[in-house]
Amino acid sequence: MKLFTAGPVACYPEVLEVMKQQMYSHRSAEYKRLHRETVESLQKFLETEANVYLFSSTGTGFMEGSVRNCINKKILCCINGSFGKRFKEVAVLNGKIVETIEPPLREPITPDILDDKLSKSPDIEAVSITHNETSTGLINPLKKLAEVVKKHGKLLIVDAVSSMGGTEIKVDKWGLDICFSSTQKCFGVPPGLGIGSVTEEALKKSETVQNKGWYFNFKIWEKYHKKDSTPMTSTIPQIAGLNQILKTIDELGGKDKYFEIHRKRNRTIKTGIQKLGLSTFPKKGYESPTISCINTPNNTDGITIYEKMREKGFELAKGYGSLKNTTFRIGNMGYIEPQDIAGMLEALNEVQQEYGW
Amino acid sequence: MKLFTAGPVACYPEVLEVMKQQMYSHRSAEYKRLHRETVESLQKFLETEANVYLFSSTGTGFMEGSVRNCINKKILCCINGSFGKRFKEVAVLNGKIVETIEPPLREPITPDILDDKLSKSPDIEAVSITHNETSTGLINPLKKLAEVVKKHGKLLIVDAVSSMGGTEIKVDKWGLDICFSSTQKCFGVPPGLGIGSVTEEALKKSETVQNKGWYFNFKIWEKYHKKDSTPMTSTIPQIAGLNQILKTIDELGGKDKYFEIHRKRNRTIKTGIQKLGLSTFPKKGYESPTISCINTPNNTDGITIYEKMREKGFELAKGYGSLKNTTFRIGNMGYIEPQDIAGMLEALNEVQQEYGW
Repeated sequence: MKLFTAGPVACYPEVLEVMKQQMYSHRSAEYKRLHRETVESLQKFLETEANVYLFSSTGTGFMEGSVRNCINKKILCCINGSFGKRFKEVAVLNGKIVETIEPPLREPITPDILDDKLSKSPDIEAVSITHNETSTGLINPLKKLAEVVKKHGKLLIVDAVSSMGGTEIKVDKWGLDICFSSTQKCFGVPPGLGIGSVTEEALKKSETVQNKGWYFNFKIWEKYHKKDSTPMTSTIPQIAGLNQILKTIDELGGKDKYFEIHRKRNRTIKTGIQKLGLSTFPKKGYESPTISCINTPNNTDGITIYEKMREKGFELAKGYGSLKNTTFRIGNMGYIEPQDIAGMLEALNEVQQEYGW
Repeated sequence: MKLFTAGPVACYPEVLEVMKQQMYSHRSAEYKRLHRETVESLQKFLETEANVYLFSSTGTGFMEGSVRNCINKKILCCINGSFGKRFKEVAVLNGKIVETIEPPLREPITPDILDDKLSKSPDIEAVSITHNETSTGLINPLKKLAEVVKKHGKLLIVDAVSSMGGTEIKVDKWGLDICFSSTQKCFGVPPGLGIGSVTEEALKKSETVQNKGWYFNFKIWEKYHKKDSTPMTSTIPQIAGLNQILKTIDELGGKDKYFEIHRKRNRTIKTGIQKLGLSTFPKKGYESPTISCINTPNNTDGITIYEKMREKGFELAKGYGSLKNTTFRIGNMGYIEPQDIAGMLEALNEVQQEYGW
């Protein structure tokens, strides 16, 4: 099966090779070397001097951690789809008050709307933004939104789950207080590791918040970060996988080259689907560079297209949430060979002819 | 390096082999099959009809989940060492009131002490017990303690991190409401997966508790359990590894045979260290079958013995917490060949001669 999924995505062969290595203690000198090297590589990749934590969880664990550590009362959640909604749900279930900005599903968060909202609600402590909304294939103008959040002096928490590794993020320059992701998206590593940067300002805020718990407690993580370690047992195979892919990216020519690979794949897919008479869901100019959310043609159903493509050996992604039937998605993250994209588009062409849209 | 660690331990070759498999979507039919099969195998292994959850976290995540889901106000934490203390710390940082039973480090929790405590504090909602305290190499008489907890009608939460898989646990028969572990101990699978059973009674209690969060929310997990899935992305490689080891255990002759392998290794190690004039730390009769905590001989230091054994190619475990210098530990979990035990004891003999205790 060739994967064009929303994640877990197909992993690079050299990453799978390190996944099978024999284990060792997470308190050993060997582990500390791996930990330090991986954290430093990720800091360089994200252009940040902030602490980088390697959570024994998925990216959603970082969502829960951000909410528990950095919000006393109120957060503003910017919502463009299911994962923005998840952030809200996580905040509510952790006892926080949530305000939202939720434009129509096809549209991004704009600096003006955000500016307006923050002007009207001065008691908002932090803003959450889904950089790249995986469910709708939409990317938000993060750099410009960050400027607005910083102008208002609020903390900014960025869910970069399906963008980190696939498109540029400059953590320090853009002023992102927390920026987290998972390994099973653009980095092409198996799932089970949440990764993210946490600034001094976020840590200071954390000192004012009660009931932070233990597992995702940033202050406990800070202590172990200094020892090149993690509070609980480290998810060693995935950390070794992440370490490997960061080396692979360097060998491929660095991160700009890696981003270009994603853009190129994405253009090839977009051109291909347009030739089949298909269009993408988000407002023009805000289409994600890592996953395409595609409107189903008249009288067809997204699930059926997904199933028919599976029969032909290609696993795409179903539409998500309220778009389950009216869209399907094609991810271009992880290990994808150029000829696989051609094969996938050819299979989609066959589905079109069989299905007759 | 031959591992006699406290975890992560050396993994079985067939487990490492599945760790390198290519990924697939956690919402695919392939994953649902793996999930269902693994949950059913684990239910059979633990002799339970309770829900079994596969957390994208370590065992400590299950600790945090238990506290957030099953305690409104007060928990009794039974403490025999560092991991009992961690349970208390997790509860306190999650805003719960904690009472404790903490006998001298060498001694177990006894049914009488527990009975007395529960009689005096009727407002205790649940009791946490560390079945096998990894830091001191002590095993508690869980079955008898469970009888006391049930007599008082309290919920029982069992940290079975270093016992599950290595010694018998009958979840339903003994009346354990929550019984959790991690994959990187007796199952000999890499770290990153928390596993545990949660009864209907624990789930009912959970409905009365506010502020449960999202990530470890048992009610959300219950919903996905019914769909053979997990709320967030599943830690697929480790789940496949656990699935594999449960098959391997069957091939080895079933779980009783697997427990006997642990007992036999443990006896060999105990006999070996006694020949070297060494003794184990816990009170006689309560020595762990999965990890030996060994008193350092006169005028020697545990860390030095650990370091000298490393130089000879054997990674033991350092003493933990307050026992850091006065003990060292030898785990017998995971993939260990009989000849490796002989080699390890021979190396320890050499250290004795060089060190001259």
